[in-house]
Amino acid sequence: MLHFEDFSVGQRLALAPFHVTAEEIAGFAAEFGSLPADFETPADNAGPAGAAASGWHGCAIFMAMICRGWLAQTAFLGAPGVKTLHWRRPIRAGDRLAGISQVTALRASQSRPAMGFLHVRHTIGNAAGDCVMELHNPMMVARRTEPS
Amino acid sequence: MLHFEDFSVGQRLALAPFHVTAEEIAGFAAEFGSLPADFETPADNAGPAGAAASGWHGCAIFMAMICRGWLAQTAFLGAPGVKTLHWRRPIRAGDRLAGISQVTALRASQSRPAMGFLHVRHTIGNAAGDCVMELHNPMMVARRTEPS
Repeated sequence: MLHFEDFSVGQRLALAPFHVTAEEIAGFAAEFGSLPADFETPADNAGPAGAAASGWHGCAIFMAMICRGWLAQTAFLGAPGVKTLHWRRPIRAGDRLAGISQVTALRASQSRPAMGFLHVRHTIGNAAGDCVMELHNPMMVARRTEPS
Repeated sequence: MLHFEDFSVGQRLALAPFHVTAEEIAGFAAEFGSLPADFETPADNAGPAGAAASGWHGCAIFMAMICRGWLAQTAFLGAPGVKTLHWRRPIRAGDRLAGISQVTALRASQSRPAMGFLHVRHTIGNAAGDCVMELHNPMMVARRTEPS
């Protein structure tokens, strides 16, 4: 298990790759509603319904990628939220996504000495090399040993 | 259909209510991985596995609530991202959620006169009156008529 002491600023952790299917996009839209994905121009989203994933489906995919990539092996205690989230390009059926989490800061918790905050920027890209999504959030991680 | 001209600063739009089930929480976690929900202390998350939804599941639920509440009746063109997102309290199986979107600003688009940006703060609460999630994001909405 990775603990707070095991991380360092600048460290890069791989997200697990993820293959997006048309069935998943249609299923997520049917269950949670169908917001168009982020796109630079509406024409980018043209095509058969469900061809692009909603931004929130992208976030669920990110969760799968981070859990399988490194978070399931981390003493993770949750996250208070997200600082910024950008949907840069559409995520489309057939996309093979990959990504990286990079540690931007480590902060001790004043109120809870048994944990610290890992500030992380996550970037996800497609096989064409386009960044499709980027977010920055603080994550709470348990320390292996409390500071004395 | 609601267009950019139909919105005003301070306007409040109801999100559709949403009843969270244990089956949905378990299903989302099985599909996308299982990050613990945001919580103030780890003890808040004690209980049977899957009792609290992950933060990203909360976002998917928010998408359902906004689509059914008002977005499906709006000439929505997508969103570039999210400015801030806070998971304030756990979302639990059995929760009956409700929420409000409030318009905080309206901005013309310099590059695309056919649309404008609606800046909106969304808050979701449970039946006990606790805010469980809050986010603020710009949303692109088509104008009914382009400014002359």
